[in-house]
Amino acid sequence: MDRFIRRAVLPKGFKAAGTASGLKKPISEDLALFYSDLPASAAAVFTRNLVKAAPLTVNMRRLRKSRSFRAIIANSGNANCYTGKEGIADAESLCGQAAAALSLEPREVFAASTGIIGRRMPVKVMSRAIPDLVSSLSSSGIQKAQKAIMTTDTFQKGATAFFTSSGRKASVCGVAKGAGMIAPDMATMLCFIFTDASVESEVLRAALKKAVEPSFNCITVDGCMSTNDNVIVLANGACGAEEITGGGRDYASFCAALDMVCCELALMIIRDAEGASKFIRISVEGASNDRQARSGALAVANSNLFKTAVYGENRNFGRIIAALGACGIGLNPERIKVKVGSLKRRDVSVDVSLGAGRGKAVVYTSDLTPEYIKINAEYS
Amino acid sequence: MDRFIRRAVLPKGFKAAGTASGLKKPISEDLALFYSDLPASAAAVFTRNLVKAAPLTVNMRRLRKSRSFRAIIANSGNANCYTGKEGIADAESLCGQAAAALSLEPREVFAASTGIIGRRMPVKVMSRAIPDLVSSLSSSGIQKAQKAIMTTDTFQKGATAFFTSSGRKASVCGVAKGAGMIAPDMATMLCFIFTDASVESEVLRAALKKAVEPSFNCITVDGCMSTNDNVIVLANGACGAEEITGGGRDYASFCAALDMVCCELALMIIRDAEGASKFIRISVEGASNDRQARSGALAVANSNLFKTAVYGENRNFGRIIAALGACGIGLNPERIKVKVGSLKRRDVSVDVSLGAGRGKAVVYTSDLTPEYIKINAEYS
Repeated sequence: MDRFIRRAVLPKGFKAAGTASGLKKPISEDLALFYSDLPASAAAVFTRNLVKAAPLTVNMRRLRKSRSFRAIIANSGNANCYTGKEGIADAESLCGQAAAALSLEPREVFAASTGIIGRRMPVKVMSRAIPDLVSSLSSSGIQKAQKAIMTTDTFQKGATAFFTSSGRKASVCGVAKGAGMIAPDMATMLCFIFTDASVESEVLRAALKKAVEPSFNCITVDGCMSTNDNVIVLANGACGAEEITGGGRDYASFCAALDMVCCELALMIIRDAEGASKFIRISVEGASNDRQARSGALAVANSNLFKTAVYGENRNFGRIIAALGACGIGLNPERIKVKVGSLKRRDVSVDVSLGAGRGKAVVYTSDLTPEYIKINAEYS
Repeated sequence: MDRFIRRAVLPKGFKAAGTASGLKKPISEDLALFYSDLPASAAAVFTRNLVKAAPLTVNMRRLRKSRSFRAIIANSGNANCYTGKEGIADAESLCGQAAAALSLEPREVFAASTGIIGRRMPVKVMSRAIPDLVSSLSSSGIQKAQKAIMTTDTFQKGATAFFTSSGRKASVCGVAKGAGMIAPDMATMLCFIFTDASVESEVLRAALKKAVEPSFNCITVDGCMSTNDNVIVLANGACGAEEITGGGRDYASFCAALDMVCCELALMIIRDAEGASKFIRISVEGASNDRQARSGALAVANSNLFKTAVYGENRNFGRIIAALGACGIGLNPERIKVKVGSLKRRDVSVDVSLGAGRGKAVVYTSDLTPEYIKINAEYS
């Protein structure tokens, strides 16, 4: 990797825009459009929640039927989830109108939504904003687009990694939203990633799958898996380099950039966790295998008692042991060792050793605070 | 059943006492003794947490080796958990000293502890209180004994059911403590149950196992399974009736009384849930089977987002759907129906229909409030 920055800079051949369509009250940015000048290959991962929002169903169909993509239309303020066939028609309609305004086929456009579950989207209101959105597409529009996908987020989450692909300068840029209803099992938020490298679809899929495991699948705010999680990556090849079709140096460089962007965005989500006063890193080693280590680390991360103890800067670490003992992984209580760093700092580290094997995992979480409750008691 | 009351009245042949041994600061009742004049059969269920407190290990050994029991010595203020071999020696020592003062064998005495995890108990301090505890044993001592097992509980939890066993008046009386670190999988708290019916050990075990399923195993405050959960039932036969050795009318009457006491105590724990402002009943029907219905109901009950919405009297019920979709049970999102009663009342009911089969379950939980966080941020 040549360089890495903690903000979004769109790669060559990508544009974005954001606007206030009138869906969110009080009025603020709620509709984003991401566009590629060139046809792009794409890959995506979706929430494993059985209740999937309508745009996810639409995107899954697109990925099965098309090999080339050009745009993503995304909104906040409404999740378009648990909205039945009408919700799917709403998502299709929005994609269709964006496609028409961009002179594309609807199948070239992905949809994404985030916000409240169980209400129809006011598609008529939203679609009135599409012409303006299309005309304001630009490479600097990423700022407004990022704003338009935020819900309880308090800051914009973007990261860009620059690398070299067969001698050409290329980059991977990602933007994400998410602060609550965050629990791993595929990307627990919306995340859109753009690269001007040229990457074959299957290779892109494999690289994304690998990238989300130690990043988005290793964070949790509240143990609540969202219905709308969706990571989409578009690779448009605008950097002019050869297509990456398998292993080798270019693939390795691309993966390193993608991994870094995903990790950084995942950590930003935890830094912005709803109401959080602490950023907590939990490392578990000495488990029978990596999967058990991850289960143990997540059990601690999702224990309300552990999270409130950290909030209270209260060294009540019996709660770590209790969470480990209850989570269903194999362990010998006598061998568990727990080390916890200072609780006075914002960043807290917990190191657990189970003494059973060589499995290890690291997950990230936040504390549980009265502010989290306030935010979620009032959110609607 | 002849009669049921929501307080503890010890059956014939049982006595109890409670005192402040000096373990808790500021000084308050922290050591309880429960005693049977006659040898009693016993049964118990234990937490499934792999990290089990020392008194549970001791009690499991006792149940394997003895058929007859006389007393329980229980303390609050220290869980005697994650304390290694020394912790087991501490529990044995306390039982031994209680046994000596009561002219019993140590194997006739159960131990129970609740409080902070990971610290040695000050057994020397505690044991100085034993002579006073023994001399103050009485049938009315149950009040002080109940007080001595409380931690964050705000009220005493007791219930008594009166019934007839082969023509003799008998009763089942239970006392419990618990308000936080409450999640089902065997008795998630301390609960001691006394009956003057005569019940053969294996029959008692079966009856208890059946009684805890729809009661203690169907409640959750925070999804955190304790290391110290233990329900112990003692049957001393002091009512003079014939021994219950299997099915039949006496067995049915006894089970009805036991079930009622367990259910009432479980509901009292939820009524006293740490910081709670709502008592929530969640019913799931139409699941593939009862186990899946229970998993679904518990997933909703343990969703922080659902709990905060109820606290905020916020009808954001997409969170119920999201929790169901994420919990790993089979369901068709299109068939889910959710009905939620008024959120303005203290008692809230949630009725979910999955439309997949005939499985059903009811669980009880509380809302998640800033007060829960305060209590657990400061508890140590």
